[in-house]
Amino acid sequence: MEGSGEQVSFGIDDLPVRDELRGKSPYGAPQLDVPVRLNTNENPYPLPGPLVERIAERVREAARDLNRYPDRDAVELRTELAKYLTRTGGYPIGTENVWAANGSNEVIQQLLQAFGGPGRTAIGFEPSYSMHALIARGTGTGWIPGPRNEDFTIDPAAGERAIATHRPDVVFITTPNNPTGNTVPAATVIALYEAAQRAKPSMVVVDEAYVEFSHGDSLLPLLADRPHLVVSRTMSKAFGAAGLRLGYLAAHPAVVDAVQLVRLPYHLSAITQATALAALEHTDTLLGYVEQLKAERDRLVTELRAMGYEVTESDANFVQFGRFRNAQDAWRRILDRGVLVRDNGVPGRLRVSAGTPQENDAFLDAVRDLKKELEA
Amino acid sequence: MEGSGEQVSFGIDDLPVRDELRGKSPYGAPQLDVPVRLNTNENPYPLPGPLVERIAERVREAARDLNRYPDRDAVELRTELAKYLTRTGGYPIGTENVWAANGSNEVIQQLLQAFGGPGRTAIGFEPSYSMHALIARGTGTGWIPGPRNEDFTIDPAAGERAIATHRPDVVFITTPNNPTGNTVPAATVIALYEAAQRAKPSMVVVDEAYVEFSHGDSLLPLLADRPHLVVSRTMSKAFGAAGLRLGYLAAHPAVVDAVQLVRLPYHLSAITQATALAALEHTDTLLGYVEQLKAERDRLVTELRAMGYEVTESDANFVQFGRFRNAQDAWRRILDRGVLVRDNGVPGRLRVSAGTPQENDAFLDAVRDLKKELEA
Repeated sequence: MEGSGEQVSFGIDDLPVRDELRGKSPYGAPQLDVPVRLNTNENPYPLPGPLVERIAERVREAARDLNRYPDRDAVELRTELAKYLTRTGGYPIGTENVWAANGSNEVIQQLLQAFGGPGRTAIGFEPSYSMHALIARGTGTGWIPGPRNEDFTIDPAAGERAIATHRPDVVFITTPNNPTGNTVPAATVIALYEAAQRAKPSMVVVDEAYVEFSHGDSLLPLLADRPHLVVSRTMSKAFGAAGLRLGYLAAHPAVVDAVQLVRLPYHLSAITQATALAALEHTDTLLGYVEQLKAERDRLVTELRAMGYEVTESDANFVQFGRFRNAQDAWRRILDRGVLVRDNGVPGRLRVSAGTPQENDAFLDAVRDLKKELEA
Repeated sequence: MEGSGEQVSFGIDDLPVRDELRGKSPYGAPQLDVPVRLNTNENPYPLPGPLVERIAERVREAARDLNRYPDRDAVELRTELAKYLTRTGGYPIGTENVWAANGSNEVIQQLLQAFGGPGRTAIGFEPSYSMHALIARGTGTGWIPGPRNEDFTIDPAAGERAIATHRPDVVFITTPNNPTGNTVPAATVIALYEAAQRAKPSMVVVDEAYVEFSHGDSLLPLLADRPHLVVSRTMSKAFGAAGLRLGYLAAHPAVVDAVQLVRLPYHLSAITQATALAALEHTDTLLGYVEQLKAERDRLVTELRAMGYEVTESDANFVQFGRFRNAQDAWRRILDRGVLVRDNGVPGRLRVSAGTPQENDAFLDAVRDLKKELEA
């Protein structure tokens, strides 16, 4: 590092990084400073004032003892998360069924460290949440892209065949799916679970990051008598707390025991635990915002269709729309109008997060313009 | 989970966990409720009131926008950490040289994901921080236990031979070492670094978690012209913030680029970043506590030796002492006197963290008693 000449000439390719990382770029949406950001499925509503105060209060309490390690097992937080799931999920969940980590990404990483890893494989039905494949790579787990229909639904028979053929150790099912927005029916999840049990048995991870925005119900009740099933959740979306990084799972207590073998000790800070607990005290207010967002999401679907766009059914806080001859070009043209949406690499499709009514209006104006421009 | 009979009969061994995890227990010191806890090298001083207020203030600000994802690259935090290192480390460090994560455990995990992993190996000179080996296992990295002398120093020639023989991809050097407390001289680190470059070249990670408590200096100046060297640090000890979970590293910018390929996106919450920034504003006060702890650590060494115990030189906020015919029995007898110390599995030795003067008095009384009891 001494001498800037040295610093310029030595780069990442001169380091002994793992071969599979060579030439790769860090994952993440472009963080651009534009008026309307609808690209990362964030909740557009800032936290309400009383909750902000409650967070400050609980963090102040926790900060006094910050010299001590946090509760390694996060028992109070897991208890409150369990109560939330029980109240909203239609199925009784206890503290022993819940595990929490820094974002659902870390939950998934821990699951793959315990049940995937070198010499093992995981399958996901693509297009889906791309971090599943990336975390598989990061944990040395082989990745198998599973099939989806043209309309982005999963054909149970095709999924069962893929599972029977590849015998993956972990099966990911994202519902509502990201970036397409559609739900996987419970019957399909059950069929894939049974195929996975016949094949190995393997673990089935149902990623319900967006389930609070669904017209339908959570799949938590499927946990009954299915000890190889895991439901993962996050506070990033429905709780409007993407900045908090709090993901969690519900499963048989044996699964919680298993992830504890691979979790980094004290992985969840006292500050994170305090903040999450404060947010859980305000669940009803936050779920009120969810209702507003669902209505806005439905409006986006209706208005986009009225304009002639092809729109995938959405049970999430975002909408996939198209088709474009060149999605990348369309993305850029929308950005030129001050609205940032997401190009997830699905051919001909873009994804827009449901924002505030004003943000959605700006987006709808932009794509109305775009439509004219592309047809001109 | 339906029916408690089912729940009792199905356990972790019925799940497809990885073979190397079978029969293992989660890592972590026993969390016992006793009057004097000197077992996890925590800083015994609660954060000062003005810092607690400042944390509440900065968290309140961050909480308003908690619906947004945090700064993925934590630029402000890395800049302040760089300033702290530059001011105290005797070597200029820039933002581009620093990376931060949820505890130094996550920093090490990211380093092993980038530079270790399946088909690769790491070496550490044991006894040392046992998480290095555990995180190696968690990332599929082969672990090689390297040699130490009887007095817990590292023999450079023996270390060089081990590196030449095994050609590890990552070399861990903990200084001051945990749980022994002694420092590895700069000349030894240089010798091991050069051996590692000849052998592969491999990455050398100097774990300086306890360096602020040292009689000597940080090894940060060794970063000059050594792009395969990484120095890892933590705010858990000197900053009295074990509950915050903030670890960081300093290295060539190419190393920072490399860990960004494996880090989970948005791994560091907005709340964590805000809290760490508040703590960094109070560095001088916190380093004042460090001076008190160093004096207390020196007192522990002196008094334990005066009692006839064998004590390893310590540059950390803890002291390794013995010898006991049966360390586990001695640990229990000290616990019976209301003082919790740590049995790290080093034969005949126990480790005690430097606490407040009152806590240390209680500990010294306990081991004075113990001495009489064992000699009776």
